[in-house]
Amino acid sequence: MKAARYYDRGDIRIDEIPEPPVAAGEVGIDVAWCGICGSDLHEYAEGPIFVPPAGHPQPISGESAPITLGHEMSGVVSAVGEGVTDLAVGDHVVVEPYIVADDVDTGPDSRSYHLSKDMNFIGLGGRGGGLGEKISVKRRWVHKIADTVPLDQAALIEPLSVGYHAVERSGAKAGDTALVVGAGPIGLLTSAVLKAIGVTVIISEPSPLRRQKAVDSGVAQHVLDPRSEDVVARVRELTGGAGAAVGFECTSVQPALDTLVDALAPQGVLVVIAIWAHPGTFDLTKIVLKELDVRGTIAYVNSHQKVIPLVEQGKVDLAPFITGRIGLDHLIDQGFDTLIHHNETAVKILVSPSGRGL
Amino acid sequence: MKAARYYDRGDIRIDEIPEPPVAAGEVGIDVAWCGICGSDLHEYAEGPIFVPPAGHPQPISGESAPITLGHEMSGVVSAVGEGVTDLAVGDHVVVEPYIVADDVDTGPDSRSYHLSKDMNFIGLGGRGGGLGEKISVKRRWVHKIADTVPLDQAALIEPLSVGYHAVERSGAKAGDTALVVGAGPIGLLTSAVLKAIGVTVIISEPSPLRRQKAVDSGVAQHVLDPRSEDVVARVRELTGGAGAAVGFECTSVQPALDTLVDALAPQGVLVVIAIWAHPGTFDLTKIVLKELDVRGTIAYVNSHQKVIPLVEQGKVDLAPFITGRIGLDHLIDQGFDTLIHHNETAVKILVSPSGRGL
Repeated sequence: MKAARYYDRGDIRIDEIPEPPVAAGEVGIDVAWCGICGSDLHEYAEGPIFVPPAGHPQPISGESAPITLGHEMSGVVSAVGEGVTDLAVGDHVVVEPYIVADDVDTGPDSRSYHLSKDMNFIGLGGRGGGLGEKISVKRRWVHKIADTVPLDQAALIEPLSVGYHAVERSGAKAGDTALVVGAGPIGLLTSAVLKAIGVTVIISEPSPLRRQKAVDSGVAQHVLDPRSEDVVARVRELTGGAGAAVGFECTSVQPALDTLVDALAPQGVLVVIAIWAHPGTFDLTKIVLKELDVRGTIAYVNSHQKVIPLVEQGKVDLAPFITGRIGLDHLIDQGFDTLIHHNETAVKILVSPSGRGL
Repeated sequence: MKAARYYDRGDIRIDEIPEPPVAAGEVGIDVAWCGICGSDLHEYAEGPIFVPPAGHPQPISGESAPITLGHEMSGVVSAVGEGVTDLAVGDHVVVEPYIVADDVDTGPDSRSYHLSKDMNFIGLGGRGGGLGEKISVKRRWVHKIADTVPLDQAALIEPLSVGYHAVERSGAKAGDTALVVGAGPIGLLTSAVLKAIGVTVIISEPSPLRRQKAVDSGVAQHVLDPRSEDVVARVRELTGGAGAAVGFECTSVQPALDTLVDALAPQGVLVVIAIWAHPGTFDLTKIVLKELDVRGTIAYVNSHQKVIPLVEQGKVDLAPFITGRIGLDHLIDQGFDTLIHHNETAVKILVSPSGRGL
């Protein structure tokens, strides 16, 4: 079968590799669609980061480069391994792409397996990837979805779960107002979750093209331009003087932090989702005098089970975020290069590894 | 009666002023002891900050400089105003020194009156102060204490409440390990609360004299010297590799933040208590990848009711933190100047406004 494999920075190849066996406790999946994530771009342009370099096996998977990429995937069950009785061939599924040690509690009440030692992701740290035609995944990490959810939209359930977990971290509840700074893929998907649970969303985004996407997708009640508007004053005005209850930092630039600190109400919560390659600075006196919380969030933990119903019930419409569909052979020229060079219009580009979805 | 009044930066005078009347709903108190707070020192050296300057009345109290200072006070009820039926002359009391607007909910379930608009403190923003012989205080802000608590120690219940609220903000619980960076008055009193609720306390403090006070007061299981020890490595060692569950920043210096971020366990909580006159910088990637919370905390809110029993039951011993007792006439030379110039040995200096306690 065909698979996109990461060898080293700037070196991703479409290889012919054997189909993965379906071992006991595993689920064989024909990948329908796999999204390209910002993490994939970082691995390509600046990595290896999560990918274990050749000769340095990942402690849990035992694998090293070349590694099959892709962790935002949907597909159809093609086989079930011994002992898997609650899924059947033909079921539509998505993957929660974790690689965690066997002794970690991954039960439904765990709130921390995503932070466990040596954690990595399927499609970055080994165990196959969504940018291959087929994948075998341990039952624990396979989530069934209703056939009514189109498989292309289902590929966005993984990044939507990132937004969902960020919203969980914020403690936002229906009736609150949120300020989301940055309308890239994660800013938009976080806004989609906020809207779905009844939060009023204000987005601040300097790019006119991204602002237009925020407007068109319908996830925000208010879309502001920080270059021409006083975002802090506008948030105050839109909240009757109170300020926003929660804020989301989705940019990794300093002015976003400053705006969020000023726009939050007392006892507000600022969730940092972006990965910052440089330090961020806070006026800590404001953090103290307003009793703000600044909370980091990474990935998701028992989030898929809550996100899938939102999509199945139509509370989140993922269609507006799909801006491209390509085959594996065009992964670099139409996928990575488009996302790197046209990142104001491209939100999520989906890959059909088999080409059958195109 | 005599009272220490703040006129302007560097200008505090011991004035003869009229005794305050005891209006309906108020409690008249003969002040026994009043502590000198870091805030008082800031007003003296760098202010006015909280004190409303002459001609600029505080919106709620309507007062401006000169203002009677002192907000860490204990005393004995000397009179009760009309309608006050649950306190009697002779009762020992402490004051929760808030000035908040009349329309703010200050009931037992309120978690936010301390952050209400134009909030200020008795003894900084008007309504008398503990550095006067007598004070009249609205019933809401007077808390009765058992006669078994010495009145000098009782004057420390106010700063202890600052520590208590900081601990509440951290979510620390019995069995956790806390790293407290800085062993000034607030670092020590926060540690005392942590110890009282069953948290293991590790203090990091560069000053040998302050480290000795931390050891002598018995509030910490471990007292580390960041100049000769690798605090992060020691915290890991003392927590079986996990890191501290909670951390408290009581210094306002950058290395403290860096140490706390590294010493915390995943999902740890860093509470910033210090007031920072300059920005603080974070490696936000660590905040994100460890899902840390950075939380500001200011003063207290419905905290006195929980702190007083800790003192009455002997779970917190405040005696070790009293390092001086003076009369009002020596407020500057033996009080402020000692705290500013000998802040490694002086923890809490108490003033007896009437001189009767000396």
